[in-house]
Amino acid sequence: MAFLIILITCFVIILATSQPCQTPDDFVAATSPGHIIIGGLFAIHEKMLSSEDYPRRPQIQKCVGFEISVFLQTLAMIHSIEKINNSTLLSGVKLGYEIYDTCTEVTVAMAATLRFLSKFNCSRETVEFKCDYSSYMPRVKAVIGSGYSEITMAVSRMLNLQLMPQVGYESTAEILSDKIRFPSFLRTVPSDFHQIKAMAHLIQKSGWNWIGIITTDDDYGRLALNTFIIQAEANNVCIAFKEVLPAFLSDNTIEVRINQTLEKIILEAQVNVIVVFLRQFHVFDLFKKAIEMNINKMWIASDNWSTATKITTIPNVKKIGKVVGFAFRRGNISSFHSFLQNLHLLPSDSNKLLHEYAMHLSACAYVKYTDLSQCIFNHSQRTLAYKANKAIERNFVMRNDFLRDYAEPGLIHSIQLAVFALGYAIRDLCQARDCQNPNAFQPWEIIIEMQIPFSKFCSVN
Amino acid sequence: MAFLIILITCFVIILATSQPCQTPDDFVAATSPGHIIIGGLFAIHEKMLSSEDYPRRPQIQKCVGFEISVFLQTLAMIHSIEKINNSTLLSGVKLGYEIYDTCTEVTVAMAATLRFLSKFNCSRETVEFKCDYSSYMPRVKAVIGSGYSEITMAVSRMLNLQLMPQVGYESTAEILSDKIRFPSFLRTVPSDFHQIKAMAHLIQKSGWNWIGIITTDDDYGRLALNTFIIQAEANNVCIAFKEVLPAFLSDNTIEVRINQTLEKIILEAQVNVIVVFLRQFHVFDLFKKAIEMNINKMWIASDNWSTATKITTIPNVKKIGKVVGFAFRRGNISSFHSFLQNLHLLPSDSNKLLHEYAMHLSACAYVKYTDLSQCIFNHSQRTLAYKANKAIERNFVMRNDFLRDYAEPGLIHSIQLAVFALGYAIRDLCQARDCQNPNAFQPWEIIIEMQIPFSKFCSVN
Repeated sequence: MAFLIILITCFVIILATSQPCQTPDDFVAATSPGHIIIGGLFAIHEKMLSSEDYPRRPQIQKCVGFEISVFLQTLAMIHSIEKINNSTLLSGVKLGYEIYDTCTEVTVAMAATLRFLSKFNCSRETVEFKCDYSSYMPRVKAVIGSGYSEITMAVSRMLNLQLMPQVGYESTAEILSDKIRFPSFLRTVPSDFHQIKAMAHLIQKSGWNWIGIITTDDDYGRLALNTFIIQAEANNVCIAFKEVLPAFLSDNTIEVRINQTLEKIILEAQVNVIVVFLRQFHVFDLFKKAIEMNINKMWIASDNWSTATKITTIPNVKKIGKVVGFAFRRGNISSFHSFLQNLHLLPSDSNKLLHEYAMHLSACAYVKYTDLSQCIFNHSQRTLAYKANKAIERNFVMRNDFLRDYAEPGLIHSIQLAVFALGYAIRDLCQARDCQNPNAFQPWEIIIEMQIPFSKFCSVN
Repeated sequence: MAFLIILITCFVIILATSQPCQTPDDFVAATSPGHIIIGGLFAIHEKMLSSEDYPRRPQIQKCVGFEISVFLQTLAMIHSIEKINNSTLLSGVKLGYEIYDTCTEVTVAMAATLRFLSKFNCSRETVEFKCDYSSYMPRVKAVIGSGYSEITMAVSRMLNLQLMPQVGYESTAEILSDKIRFPSFLRTVPSDFHQIKAMAHLIQKSGWNWIGIITTDDDYGRLALNTFIIQAEANNVCIAFKEVLPAFLSDNTIEVRINQTLEKIILEAQVNVIVVFLRQFHVFDLFKKAIEMNINKMWIASDNWSTATKITTIPNVKKIGKVVGFAFRRGNISSFHSFLQNLHLLPSDSNKLLHEYAMHLSACAYVKYTDLSQCIFNHSQRTLAYKANKAIERNFVMRNDFLRDYAEPGLIHSIQLAVFALGYAIRDLCQARDCQNPNAFQPWEIIIEMQIPFSKFCSVN
C-alpha cells in the first residue's frame, strides 16, 4: 500500500511539472474554492520552452527556471486570503483563488486572462463577446498581478473590456498611473517616478555627477530610462553611458549584451556610479561576471532587486563594491513567517507549485545552503523525472529557514496590501447583498469601492 | 410606398449612427461573406463618447468624429478584396471581410479582436480557452490593421494567443519589428527607424543644428523620440526642446498642452526647425492655432501626416512656413479611383460606413468644398437625427472628387499590399487543399507562407 502511494505521488509530480498544458485545469498553478474567486498572476518560472515543431504552433509549452522568491509571493497571496477567511471581515463569505504562472511571457499571461474573463459556471471555458459587460459574470471577480510592468500592461488592456479590477503588487512603470489607458488598474507600490526622483536627488547630493545607467528594453526599463534622463538633467548629473539589455530570456542575445555592457563599464573607467534598472535575473548574471572580472563600483539599485536574496547570496558579492538601493515600504510579516512554518499543513493536491518545490528541494537535498536557490532554478531547467521519496515532508520543515530568507518583506507586504484592499472593498460591497451568491455583484462594481483613501489598509497584520 | 422607403432608410441610418452597440452585429462596420474571412481594424472615428453613467460601466459607447481619410482606407481594403475575388488568384475561393471601427480606443479594438478570435460557425460569439490552438478554427483567418501603433501592439498581444497573422498598413513603431514580442505581426510599411535616420541625416546635411521636436505620449511617439535623440546625437544635431502631447482625444488636457507647446515655440525664437511626430488631429489643431499666432517655421513631417489632405487644406496653411516630409512609397492606385467612381454600386446594406458617410454628406451639402471634411467631422460629433432625402445617391456621385482628394496614395497602396500579401499566401496554402471548406487551414499556417520575399507583392495594380 505504501509503495502504491509513493507511486501515485511520483506520477502526480511528474505530471505536474514535466507535462505541458493539455487541459485548462493543467494550466492553473494553485486553486481553492470560494464564494468569490480572486485571480493571481505570478512569473513563477523564468521562461517558457520554445516548441521544437516547425512551423511554430500556438501552444502553451512547458516552463522552466523555478523562482523561489516568486513562489513565495504566491504563498503570500494564499496566506492573505486564508487570513481574511479566518477573520470576521467577510462574515461567512469565503474567498477562493486561482493562481496562474505567466512564465514571464505576455502570451501565457494573456491565456490566463482569457480564463479569468471566461463565463462563470459554464461547462465550456469560453469568453463571450458582448457590447455591454455590465451584467456579465466572469470566472473571477478581481485579479492580483502580474509582476512585470510589460505583462501587467498587456493583461490590463484585456481586463479593461470588463473593467475588472487588477491590483498590481510590483509593477512600478509610471504609465500604469494613467487612468485613461488603465482605468481598472490599481497598485500597492508607488510609481517609478518617485523612486527615480529620489535617485537623481541622492546622486546629486552625493556629488556623483558622472554616471552610467543600465536598463531592460521593456516598458519598465524604457520608461524608467526616459524619466531618469529628465531627472538627471534637472539635477545636473551627466550620463556617461546608457546600456539597454533584452528583458526577456527568450531573447538569446542576453549573454552577449551582458558581456558588452561589462566591456563598456571597463572602458568607461572614470565612471564609478552605475544605476541599475534590471530584473533580478540580469543583475545575477551581470554581478557574477563582474566579480570574475574584478569590477568594483558603486551600484544604485532599483526596488525590484535591492533586497533580493538571490543577489545578496551571490558568492563573493562584496567584491562588487557598494550597493545603495531603494526598496518598497516593509510591513510586519511575522504572521507570514508562521504560515511558512506550517506549510506542510497546506492542502497540496490543488497546489502544483508545492509539488514542484518539493521535487526540486528533494533533487537539491545535498547541495550547500548558499547554492540551494540556484540548484532549484537549474534543476527546473531540466526535465528529469523525479524519484519520489518520503523525505518531502521533512524537507519542508527543514528548509523553512530557506524560504524565510527568500521572502522579500517589501513585496510580501505589498501582496498582503493588495489582497486586503480587495477584501475591504468586497466587505463594503457585501454590506447590503448576500455575497454567498456568486451573482451578488459584478467585477466593475469593486473599483468604485476601492476609490477610498488607501491608508485604511496600511495595517494588515 | 415611396414615403415608406424614405422612412425605412431614415430609420436604418439613425440606427446605424446614433445607437450604441447592442448586439455583436451592431458592432461590425462593414461585412461581406466569403469562404475565408479577413478581419479589418480601422480608426474610423476619432473618439468614443464617455458614458454618462456613474459609476462607469464596461460598455461600448457611441463613437464620434468621422474621419474621411480612414473611411477611404476601409474602402481600399474592400476594393483590394473585390479585386482578388474578381481575379483568378484564388480560383473559386471567395474572400470575405469583417471590418471594425476601433474609435481610436484600445479597448474597442480589443473587443473587435475578441470577436475575430471567437469560434467559427458557433451560435454564440465565444472565444474558447485552450492550451493548444493548433486545431482551433476562429471566425477570421487573418487581420489587417490597426492604424495606430499603440492599438496595433495591444491587439497583437491578443492575436498571438492563436498566432493569427496581423498585417499592419500604417503602424511604424520600431518595436513592432521585434519577433519575440510580436511573432504574428507583419507590415507593409517600414519601421520608424529608417525614417528617423533619414530625418536626422536631412537635418544635419541642411545645416539645421538647433531644432525642436513634438511627439505624442503613446508608444509611437515615445519610441520615435527615443530613436530621434540617438540619431540626432550621432549627427551632431542639438535638441532645443521636446514637447510631448497626449495621444488620445479622451484626454481633455490636449488643448492646454497644444497651447503650451505653441508658447514654447514662441519662447524658443531661435529654433526654426521643428520635427513633428503627431497624429493628423494634433497637427490640424496645432497648425490652425499657429497660423492665428503668425508662427512661421520649417516643419519636418512624419509619414502619418506628410501627405494628409486634412492638413494641406487648412485655410491659409502656407502661412505656417515650409513643410518637408517623409511619405510611404506610392503605388499606382488608378483602379481604386475607378472603384470610387462606382461607389454607389457597392451594396450598402452591410456597410454602415457608407450610410454614415451619406448622412454626413447630406448634412454638409451646402458648405464649401474646402470645409467639407471638417463639416463631416464636426457633424458626426453631434447626435442629430438625420432627415433622409433622395439626394444621397446624387451626392455620392457629385462628391467623388472629394473622396479622391482625401485618398492618401501611400496609405492606399500600403493597404493594397497588405491584402494582396494575404491573398498570395492563401493561394500558396490552397494549392493542395480545398479552401472552399472553411476548415481547410488554421490562421497560424498563413504566417509560414508569408515569410517569403516581399518584393513579390510590389505590383498590385
